[in-house]
Amino acid sequence: MRLVESRLTGPVRVVGVGLLGTSVALGLRQRGVDVILADASPTHVAIAVDLGAGRAAAPGDAPELIVVAVPPDVTAQVVASELAAFPDAIVTDVASVKAGILQELRDQGADVTRYLGSHPLAGRERGGPLAGRADLFQGRPWVVAAHDDISYRRASAVDDLILDLGGTLVEMTPEQHDRGVALISHVPQVVSSLMARRFIDAPSDALGLAGQGVRDVTRVAASDPDLWVQILGANAGSVRDILVAYRDDLDRFIDALADPAAPGARRRVAEELAGGNAGVSRLPGKHGTDKRFATLTVMVDDRPGQLARLLAEIGEIGVNLEDLRLEHAQGRQVGLAEIAVLPEAVDRLSTELAARGWRIAG
Amino acid sequence: MRLVESRLTGPVRVVGVGLLGTSVALGLRQRGVDVILADASPTHVAIAVDLGAGRAAAPGDAPELIVVAVPPDVTAQVVASELAAFPDAIVTDVASVKAGILQELRDQGADVTRYLGSHPLAGRERGGPLAGRADLFQGRPWVVAAHDDISYRRASAVDDLILDLGGTLVEMTPEQHDRGVALISHVPQVVSSLMARRFIDAPSDALGLAGQGVRDVTRVAASDPDLWVQILGANAGSVRDILVAYRDDLDRFIDALADPAAPGARRRVAEELAGGNAGVSRLPGKHGTDKRFATLTVMVDDRPGQLARLLAEIGEIGVNLEDLRLEHAQGRQVGLAEIAVLPEAVDRLSTELAARGWRIAG
Repeated sequence: MRLVESRLTGPVRVVGVGLLGTSVALGLRQRGVDVILADASPTHVAIAVDLGAGRAAAPGDAPELIVVAVPPDVTAQVVASELAAFPDAIVTDVASVKAGILQELRDQGADVTRYLGSHPLAGRERGGPLAGRADLFQGRPWVVAAHDDISYRRASAVDDLILDLGGTLVEMTPEQHDRGVALISHVPQVVSSLMARRFIDAPSDALGLAGQGVRDVTRVAASDPDLWVQILGANAGSVRDILVAYRDDLDRFIDALADPAAPGARRRVAEELAGGNAGVSRLPGKHGTDKRFATLTVMVDDRPGQLARLLAEIGEIGVNLEDLRLEHAQGRQVGLAEIAVLPEAVDRLSTELAARGWRIAG
Repeated sequence: MRLVESRLTGPVRVVGVGLLGTSVALGLRQRGVDVILADASPTHVAIAVDLGAGRAAAPGDAPELIVVAVPPDVTAQVVASELAAFPDAIVTDVASVKAGILQELRDQGADVTRYLGSHPLAGRERGGPLAGRADLFQGRPWVVAAHDDISYRRASAVDDLILDLGGTLVEMTPEQHDRGVALISHVPQVVSSLMARRFIDAPSDALGLAGQGVRDVTRVAASDPDLWVQILGANAGSVRDILVAYRDDLDRFIDALADPAAPGARRRVAEELAGGNAGVSRLPGKHGTDKRFATLTVMVDDRPGQLARLLAEIGEIGVNLEDLRLEHAQGRQVGLAEIAVLPEAVDRLSTELAARGWRIAG
């Protein structure tokens, strides 16, 4: 593994070795940083040490920076005790809601001249130290929740951490951050979960008609309720404001459907849908399939080795696979492999695969 | 292209050569069926003929089966005129809402003993004849909206069409179908569009924090409002019923967030979210949310052939790949292959892959 000089000089103490804490530790170790691991669970620490994420805490540790990566509910309390226990250390946290934590620390009289909260917009479906990845933060936004009580010089340790881990530093106030994540993360979670709730008592033949659209809308509904109760509770105000505006739209929509033939009803429905077009077009970057690539759908027998053979032949043809999505055709021993390649390669690939006997489905 | 004998004997007339009509025609041509193309737009017919989708309509055509693939708003009217113009033909349509069309035909006194509506659950982001694909319906559910006025023998022509095109035939009453698609397609569309509407006036730095979750939730919000106004108008009753139940959940959620510290508030939020877990787990087989499989994430160099080598070795190990998702670590020459396998196989696979030098990322 290539070792890159870290911008951090002293040791970094990571408190809480779940997914985020372990990923921070692994990334810093790749930079040769002395990483100190602490967790309420000695087992988790032992696992993280085995993963090469760092060393267990020891008396006399003098960390330059402390990264608190514990559940949102206990973050403020742990940050406060770390600030007290290490009077020379800068402390940050990675909780997904920021304003409440800073307020709680101020209320407790904690030394916020050494605290700078942050939030990496990165995660995975699974948690725990074993899910940790050194590259988890590569190219992901990482918000620094700026406030006026910490000096520029001290704040730089947190900036260094983010840059070391390949994150894209975004500076916001805690309030801007909380409103922002309510909009692009917390409310979508609620909207998706409430949609999926409708499936609980649905006839299974109806669910059998489900396509990619509804799967996408409800994918995040599989998220961990325990974690989300904490997040939504900590950001209740911002989430509620957006949900209320969402409900107002929904009410108008429901009214319009009461009599779709009524004057103006169709126009109102069309306007709501067009508003959705306008809104989604404001999301930067890719939605679903990346427009920079052309896609080719190939039918693959659902047997071991078949997909491998396809990809091997794509390799022989000399085309690089930019992305791949597998779709299982329901009730048949065949799958559809949607292959994304550079646009200039798609025609040649299609021709050569067809010549090799593959069935191109589009 | 391999030519497979069709189950249909006579010519098939396709009315409306957009995405669905052209795809039906192309699929039937592959089976050697004599396909007659009709459309309000002579240009579209000319394009479809050039694509090899069939021949233009001519005097004296005597189709065995007529497939009406026109916009929902005009489907019933076109079906009625086709029934009148071709007294010996069986007529079906592919509109995404079914009960209203049958009712309208009955009200008009059309000969519904020769009409059997259907709905293929297939589509693409792009429309028009050029987007047509012979394999568009391969392995997709295709609902036959059964009613009592058409005889079993006559209905078989529609079954033959669906089987010819590789669709999975699903029989439902028109009402069951409309409630089903309201739940798994129409309501998710509304929920997604209303979510995306919230982005219209959002600060762009907040939108810059968007991750895959919100992109998935709002992807279908990019759909064509003109088409959806027709679909939602035609299925207003079923859609509205589900939206009202959805709003009741939303109201409870909003109330709980008004005072998240109040007794029972957290429990209510947790129950709504857990309900989302339970609901989404009922969607049949698809990655991410599919609890029947265990997943393993392997790091793969982003070079041609690497992924093929991985899958070949998985084949050697003798484990069947149930699903696979590729994730590119942004700005790095490495990808992450998330592999879904049967739970009992995951430990052995993880061990053997690691022994072969693969980096298991979780």
